[in-house]
Amino acid sequence: MECRDFGATGYAGIALFSLLLRHKDVNVTLITSNTYKGQKISDIFPLLKGSSDERLVGTDEDHRGKCDVYFLCLPHGTSAEKARVLFDGKALIVDLSADFRFEDRALYEHHYVPHCACELLPHAVYGLPELYREKIRGSKLIGNPGCYPTSAILALYPIARNGLVAGDAFIDSKSGVSGAGRELKLGSLFCEVAEGFRPYNVGIHRHEPEIQKEISKLGGVKITFVPHLLPMNRGILTTAYGGSHLP
Amino acid sequence: MECRDFGATGYAGIALFSLLLRHKDVNVTLITSNTYKGQKISDIFPLLKGSSDERLVGTDEDHRGKCDVYFLCLPHGTSAEKARVLFDGKALIVDLSADFRFEDRALYEHHYVPHCACELLPHAVYGLPELYREKIRGSKLIGNPGCYPTSAILALYPIARNGLVAGDAFIDSKSGVSGAGRELKLGSLFCEVAEGFRPYNVGIHRHEPEIQKEISKLGGVKITFVPHLLPMNRGILTTAYGGSHLP
Amino acid sequence: MECRDFGATGYAGIALFSLLLRHKDVNVTLITSNTYKGQKISDIFPLLKGSSDERLVGTDEDHRGKCDVYFLCLPHGTSAEKARVLFDGKALIVDLSADFRFEDRALYEHHYVPHCACELLPHAVYGLPELYREKIRGSKLIGNPGCYPTSAILALYPIARNGLVAGDAFIDSKSGVSGAGRELKLGSLFCEVAEGFRPYNVGIHRHEPEIQKEISKLGGVKITFVPHLLPMNRGILTTAYGGSHLP
Amino acid sequence: MECRDFGATGYAGIALFSLLLRHKDVNVTLITSNTYKGQKISDIFPLLKGSSDERLVGTDEDHRGKCDVYFLCLPHGTSAEKARVLFDGKALIVDLSADFRFEDRALYEHHYVPHCACELLPHAVYGLPELYREKIRGSKLIGNPGCYPTSAILALYPIARNGLVAGDAFIDSKSGVSGAGRELKLGSLFCEVAEGFRPYNVGIHRHEPEIQKEISKLGGVKITFVPHLLPMNRGILTTAYGGSHLP
Repeated sequence: MECRDFGATGYAGIALFSLLLRHKDVNVTLITSNTYKGQKISDIFPLLKGSSDERLVGTDEDHRGKCDVYFLCLPHGTSAEKARVLFDGKALIVDLSADFRFEDRALYEHHYVPHCACELLPHAVYGLPELYREKIRGSKLIGNPGCYPTSAILALYPIARNGLVAGDAFIDSKSGVSGAGRELKLGSLFCEVAEGFRPYNVGIHRHEPEIQKEISKLGGVKITFVPHLLPMNRGILTTAYGGSHLP
Repeated sequence: MECRDFGATGYAGIALFSLLLRHKDVNVTLITSNTYKGQKISDIFPLLKGSSDERLVGTDEDHRGKCDVYFLCLPHGTSAEKARVLFDGKALIVDLSADFRFEDRALYEHHYVPHCACELLPHAVYGLPELYREKIRGSKLIGNPGCYPTSAILALYPIARNGLVAGDAFIDSKSGVSGAGRELKLGSLFCEVAEGFRPYNVGIHRHEPEIQKEISKLGGVKITFVPHLLPMNRGILTTAYGGSHLP
Repeated sequence: MECRDFGATGYAGIALFSLLLRHKDVNVTLITSNTYKGQKISDIFPLLKGSSDERLVGTDEDHRGKCDVYFLCLPHGTSAEKARVLFDGKALIVDLSADFRFEDRALYEHHYVPHCACELLPHAVYGLPELYREKIRGSKLIGNPGCYPTSAILALYPIARNGLVAGDAFIDSKSGVSGAGRELKLGSLFCEVAEGFRPYNVGIHRHEPEIQKEISKLGGVKITFVPHLLPMNRGILTTAYGGSHLP
Repeated sequence: MECRDFGATGYAGIALFSLLLRHKDVNVTLITSNTYKGQKISDIFPLLKGSSDERLVGTDEDHRGKCDVYFLCLPHGTSAEKARVLFDGKALIVDLSADFRFEDRALYEHHYVPHCACELLPHAVYGLPELYREKIRGSKLIGNPGCYPTSAILALYPIARNGLVAGDAFIDSKSGVSGAGRELKLGSLFCEVAEGFRPYNVGIHRHEPEIQKEISKLGGVKITFVPHLLPMNRGILTTAYGGSHLP
């Protein structure tokens, strides 16, 4: 299977690329980056020396019709634009941004930006295999779930589906720093993170509506979501709480 | 004010000693340690070089009637034994173990060990100033609150006291590693903690009944407590959740 | 003693401010920041809540003749400009940048920028008390030594002064991340630093000439300096090596 | 190729096991541990869930003649005892302890313990492929180099072999904490390591003679070795310094 990784030098893109490199059925034919185009991926991530000498190509070039799977590791908005160009109903597009996670355009636009490829939304499947395995198999456009939603939905779904949560559910999530991406932000500096721990974006994090929309399909459970930043590189642990219907 | 710090070479004891050293009204006249007795505290904690040349004295010697305040930073059980010897109704004893945190001997013994100084329990005050400031002022035996209970009670108390929490409250606490003490435990090794995060003792942590007994005084709120271990030295952050009576 | 801290919201400025706050003979009358001017220092560094409610004033205002000591925690170049305005031979100026560390203007300009206050250089003393205690006492302009040079010079000086190092000395320094300052740099992001360790700026770090100029005063020892970045907040440890004249 | 991993639950043993699991030509037929015998390796290291359900067997059982390669990840001394039992000139033994790193029994015994399998020493090869690739190919007993020596010899060898180092070489090594093994030692506790950095065993570390014996084969270079402990899990970085013959 031939693959392309767009935005390969962000933390998501490079983690994906490392997984694809080791996958026996996958042949990565192209990786892109606007920041580092022309350079070798192994010059930017020296751990890849010996595994890959691939050179990065600009994200904006024309990549249509050239491979079996496209992975988009681009910022939201940019991802939808790229998907619009690439989608042809034949090649599979896996989008790691939020652009194809919401069936409901208005909900997406309320929390993100105007959607520039909303005509594709009916083709998209929310890519959580534990919930939508069959739909994912048949789809050519997968909206990969957010990091927090994956941890929260997998925790709550089994008990919510069985009607064991009554009223409120509380989702207390803790994430490593790579979740914030490889951008220059004061809050991602080593000295601002190490030896500390804090909640952030309480009540306004965009993963809350993403979690809520899936849990709502199971009934009237109302979630409260509090993300926290852990002083470690990667991984998420979510502890979920709910009152029970049982006596 | 003359003070003595028993068990001064644990993480609690040494943090206390550092605070006392800088306190303008306090004169530390004795520090004890069975492990390091005879040695200088500054040889064990080199940061103290220049601040203190105090030598450690064995915990078991007779220290009665020699100062104004005794701080006990000993394991539970051992602390009660020491308090029994030292208590005379004149000197103030501040115990950092769990031995004098429970008015209810049976509750203590259910979660800890048989109490060897239960005759002192009526003299003890739970040392959380935000709740018991006046009682603390008059007492000669203070049971210093546990680390998690301090964070949890301070979070929940204001809203529980005003009847704003209905039914269940969920306490999600995250602690640095020093909370586990300076003992040789596999789970406290750097390589077992760094780059990781995990809940532990779920449903069986002894700080749960300590939190519950205080919150119960405000009504029927039932708490659930989940402690987690953070990859950092010290500090606790607690996020507490509760359903509300309000519509 | 009345003090002012210029550039109080960088890592050096805030560390200095914390020390000054606790100093019994010091009264901090003004702290400045261009980035945060108008805000309370305790809103930017919440640890200071309860210790200081001071508001930050713009660095560029006129602060002449208003206090006993000025601390400059500004970028090099900017510091010299400010010192030029403030220097009056009466108030003490302590500059934490590199601007007044080099007696030799040409050497400074070779490694930094054109010096805009070189007429002050004859007034400046290199502020390492172990070497220049008396001169420091009499001076009104102190060039505070760099972080690496402090660690390296204090290590080498005693043996070099006694002629015990022959020919080459090798200085292997390891610094916490705060040494890089509170700027947005890819190399200071948590995920780029944690679980890693690396040398940087080998052969081109500007602290090498600063160390060399002091060691050269003791004879012909030639230094090689290799700085490394540690995955921790702060502190420097330097290991220095030298061949000996002794058999 | 069938393999056995003795002492699979130490940090070296488990890292080795993870590598072997992914090696396409290797079939791990047995892993041992005295501490955890009878348990599943994936219960002790949950990351292995899904990759291996292997159960640990006691190290002391008879494992002769049962596979192609034996890896010994045992303490020194114990390793030699085990090698004595297993060595038959047919199966390959790779020993990760220090027991077969020294051709010179007296040198080994000076720094370690009496050697209980010295009759095997003539069969052993120092397993650094960059130096002894051909010998390693023909050997049935490989003494895997120490962690620090690997980093130091690879750094110095090329320049020492070409006669470019004169007299002294200085080896400044920094290691992650896993190098200390999975033993309960105060110095390996998270709170003793995090936010700190220190040299240790200066002048007495047993890797110094191991480095020296290899470098000495190239001429009269005398090494000085200073190991340091880094606040991170794993990896070693060595910076080596030497005066040059060149003008």
